[in-house]
Amino acid sequence: MTDQELIGHLRTVPDFPVKGILFWDVTTLFKDPGAFGEVVGRICDIYKDKGITKVAGIESRGFIAGAAVASRLGAGFVPVRKPGKLPADTVSATYDKEYGKDTIEIHADAITPDDVVLIHDDLLATGGTARAAVELVNKFHPKKVYVNFLIALKEFDMLKNFPEDTTTLLTL
Amino acid sequence: MTDQELIGHLRTVPDFPVKGILFWDVTTLFKDPGAFGEVVGRICDIYKDKGITKVAGIESRGFIAGAAVASRLGAGFVPVRKPGKLPADTVSATYDKEYGKDTIEIHADAITPDDVVLIHDDLLATGGTARAAVELVNKFHPKKVYVNFLIALKEFDMLKNFPEDTTTLLTL
Repeated sequence: MTDQELIGHLRTVPDFPVKGILFWDVTTLFKDPGAFGEVVGRICDIYKDKGITKVAGIESRGFIAGAAVASRLGAGFVPVRKPGKLPADTVSATYDKEYGKDTIEIHADAITPDDVVLIHDDLLATGGTARAAVELVNKFHPKKVYVNFLIALKEFDMLKNFPEDTTTLLTL
Repeated sequence: MTDQELIGHLRTVPDFPVKGILFWDVTTLFKDPGAFGEVVGRICDIYKDKGITKVAGIESRGFIAGAAVASRLGAGFVPVRKPGKLPADTVSATYDKEYGKDTIEIHADAITPDDVVLIHDDLLATGGTARAAVELVNKFHPKKVYVNFLIALKEFDMLKNFPEDTTTLLTL
């Protein structure tokens, strides 16, 4: 499947979640067996020789391809969640948003220094949550942290704030 | 891996999310490559000859094994979400909770009459959300609707409210 065909499975929704935002909807891609398989397969191809032991998916669209990739790579899956969602002891990172601050959490026993972690989210726009996720995963001192986005939006140009070996499948 | 070994990967958290509730935490199972692989493999073994075309995972813990199963079965993945999370036109179902009502949604173009749908969630307790998910998926008139839970809690005895061929991996 070509990039253009994958892009053809995305849907744009104007003014979501607020007026003025053009939202890239990945659910139309995930519902299509061929496109979902293509995305999961491409991510696995990139990371299959990296010794990934945990995939950390960012709540909650990052759970979808993230969990499928973890399963196919023979890794575990770790959810990166908003406050109050994880029941046991957590480690957290707080980051600035346009108005105020936000926090994300990972269970304190979810990652060890022996892990090689792939952080995954569906879409990189302003990148605040994903940057906090990188900072948060690094607090566990794993052997190596990789980052993958299904989509990066060119207009925000935020890939430069991530590790050099960060990958994206589609740049829009 | 035996049932007992799988159960050994679960964690119980007292008084979460509210006092008096003993919460069964599946994140300790999902983070373990062997246990996560076992769960995904067992669900796929049950449904591999059923012609599943879409796995509908219930927000948001149901996304994790649900998406991995969809990928391995060569199916698409459809998120069942709380109101306001899905950007395009939706179909919804409303159900009673202990205090008040709740609603879940699926994108209106996510399921067609040609689909064979597997609804998945991590845990069956009182079952309100999952029953609403069955009602909601049936509004799309798919060929067949299957239901799977990773865990069913005996004390609530709610499996009787689901189709006879509903499956669970662990009963606790």
